[in-house]
Amino acid sequence: MSHDVSRRSFFGGIAAALGYLGLGPSTDLFAQQNRPGAAGNAPRMRTSSDDYDTMAHLSSNENCWGPPESVMKAMTNAWKYSNRYGYPDANIVGEIAKHHGVKQENILLGAGSGEILDVVGTTYLLGGKKVLGVEPSYSSVYQHATSIKTTAIKLPLGKDYRQDIPAMIKAANEHASEIGLVYLCNPNNPTGITVTKDEVRQLLDGIPKGMPVLIDEAYHHFVDDPNYATSVPYVIEGRPVIIARTFSKIAALAGMRLGYAVASAEIVQKMRPYSMGSINALVKHGGAAALKDTASQASIKKMVIDLRKKTTSELNAYGYETLPSETNFFMVSIGREIQPVIQEFAKKGVAVGRPFPPMTTHMRVSIGTAEEMDRFTKAFKEIFPAKPKSTAAVEGRIVKSTN
Amino acid sequence: MSHDVSRRSFFGGIAAALGYLGLGPSTDLFAQQNRPGAAGNAPRMRTSSDDYDTMAHLSSNENCWGPPESVMKAMTNAWKYSNRYGYPDANIVGEIAKHHGVKQENILLGAGSGEILDVVGTTYLLGGKKVLGVEPSYSSVYQHATSIKTTAIKLPLGKDYRQDIPAMIKAANEHASEIGLVYLCNPNNPTGITVTKDEVRQLLDGIPKGMPVLIDEAYHHFVDDPNYATSVPYVIEGRPVIIARTFSKIAALAGMRLGYAVASAEIVQKMRPYSMGSINALVKHGGAAALKDTASQASIKKMVIDLRKKTTSELNAYGYETLPSETNFFMVSIGREIQPVIQEFAKKGVAVGRPFPPMTTHMRVSIGTAEEMDRFTKAFKEIFPAKPKSTAAVEGRIVKSTN
Repeated sequence: MSHDVSRRSFFGGIAAALGYLGLGPSTDLFAQQNRPGAAGNAPRMRTSSDDYDTMAHLSSNENCWGPPESVMKAMTNAWKYSNRYGYPDANIVGEIAKHHGVKQENILLGAGSGEILDVVGTTYLLGGKKVLGVEPSYSSVYQHATSIKTTAIKLPLGKDYRQDIPAMIKAANEHASEIGLVYLCNPNNPTGITVTKDEVRQLLDGIPKGMPVLIDEAYHHFVDDPNYATSVPYVIEGRPVIIARTFSKIAALAGMRLGYAVASAEIVQKMRPYSMGSINALVKHGGAAALKDTASQASIKKMVIDLRKKTTSELNAYGYETLPSETNFFMVSIGREIQPVIQEFAKKGVAVGRPFPPMTTHMRVSIGTAEEMDRFTKAFKEIFPAKPKSTAAVEGRIVKSTN
Repeated sequence: MSHDVSRRSFFGGIAAALGYLGLGPSTDLFAQQNRPGAAGNAPRMRTSSDDYDTMAHLSSNENCWGPPESVMKAMTNAWKYSNRYGYPDANIVGEIAKHHGVKQENILLGAGSGEILDVVGTTYLLGGKKVLGVEPSYSSVYQHATSIKTTAIKLPLGKDYRQDIPAMIKAANEHASEIGLVYLCNPNNPTGITVTKDEVRQLLDGIPKGMPVLIDEAYHHFVDDPNYATSVPYVIEGRPVIIARTFSKIAALAGMRLGYAVASAEIVQKMRPYSMGSINALVKHGGAAALKDTASQASIKKMVIDLRKKTTSELNAYGYETLPSETNFFMVSIGREIQPVIQEFAKKGVAVGRPFPPMTTHMRVSIGTAEEMDRFTKAFKEIFPAKPKSTAAVEGRIVKSTN
């Protein structure tokens, strides 16, 4: 009948292929993206998309390798829900809860941890309360505070660009009545430096009882330092701690948008009205698969750490200090303002940066593929002269508090 | 080198296939979903996913046919951005703006129009202002009002289940100081009935100057009635009108999550802090493709209208009144409470419903495939007895105002 004929012409044959053909070993979309000039690739038309594809993207702390096969398979199998609402969702909330040993009522899904940061900000800062944190850090919460007409109390980093926990405790107590939320990015972005588990406990014990603390663990999965630990146990302990996690980093799903908060049921309920509860069907399935694919995550972690060590060693040998990162990015001290340098790298097909005031003479570099890191190092040596290797300790800088 | 070997094992071969293989004519994912028992299909294992797949989903006003080929192709070509942030986004905001003849500053993207409704609610109701609308209507805004600790002023539908514009104007003026927002769903959900363009003008001219009006045009694309028109021109005229649109209905992207608001630049700026700005990469490309595929949308519209007319005619002939819908769903008067009836349909593999108080003796039925509508009609005739065809006019019901 005519309906069926018309209907057929609508279906995504591509989706069907994806769902049922299995894995094709001969083509490799992510590899082509990362290796535009590789031998054997057919010539491609120049488009703005191709311009994007030819850059080494080392500016946004992405996972250059893309989602692993298990995750791609789960997502493509979910195409059939692309037109649906109440479909089987791979029990994503349950899987996350199980992963952390908490209940489903302790999980709030977000479209990336960016949504979670905004939701926490709206929940605790609406009406003019301030967020307390360090600068530089991931500035999303501070920006959201501004957008909802309040401000941040930003403390300078301490010695060796570490977050100064005693100073945070002091400020939290002195400004207790003004503060709605403490923000701790651990490991910190853009420095890549961790706060130790002892320091986290010191912070939580030292601030006024009941003051909510948002701990952003976006880069949790890359950390090797045994002195670091996740703060999820503090949620289970009943503290007013909210952990933000994302599938954008180790799980390589930045463009797909999935993150979540772990917090007490009471806090989750308080936040839910400001969350959209509007997550893409594919990434729910992808996220559930990612949680299970620990082998892929271990492999990504190893590649990131190996490439980070290789690249920073080369920069150190060339005479440039790097900060001791535990993430998929690092900072290098370039001794001059970063902004014009970003342009010089861009001309060489490498995206780096951006400025992170007040550390504007440091450059943040994300870990890309081996080829991309080679390209970066080559560009670095073209742009900067070799320097005698400095042995001076990296000193913390004084940052003006703004509030 | 070892990095490259490890990397290769991670890539989504499926994604590569999707991006480069072109369309496979022989398999049809959406058709299988809708025709579980069709001849020639291999036996499938029973899973919760399969249980879902075997139901005729006529309860959520989805587009059963799934995204058209052009949209699937655009989405699958965007897999390479699944791990990225600042990728080429198919100029989705620009394409939407062009589609409506407005500027990019007039568009706010949302993860479905559900996010838009929440964002508008938060923007205009925070602090206790009320939303004014009819009941039943799409209750999302009313529920959001409750979640942010305010309420709705809900007016009963008027004669023939139409939205009573003079009553809305009267209430808007009488309660002007309490009201933050007027909500008008056009065509209305769950009735499927339009508000005419003359009535919209009457409403906008009659309410207090400057009172924001949210006009939810989720089902715009299915309307045939020449007395209906989009209210986007009122935005261009400079009125405080916000139009909500979605890619979930005619474009079949409900599970992918894309919608938007059209409003003045000033209103968009006011709303932006409460929007997540966190849209999946694939659906940005899918949405841009959907806007251009007017042929597919025309075909979907024709299928929906043909199947709606066929089904309602059969119900009318069987003695049951249906409301005059202009959407991809309709209501039928069943003369008894809907809740137990939903269970009876579910046992026959058909999902319908839900209760829409106070119209709890009407059943809302979404338009599915021809096979699904046949299944529905068959189930209806098994559950309900034939009645002598009534010629009585459908009368409006009195609904108690709640505020």
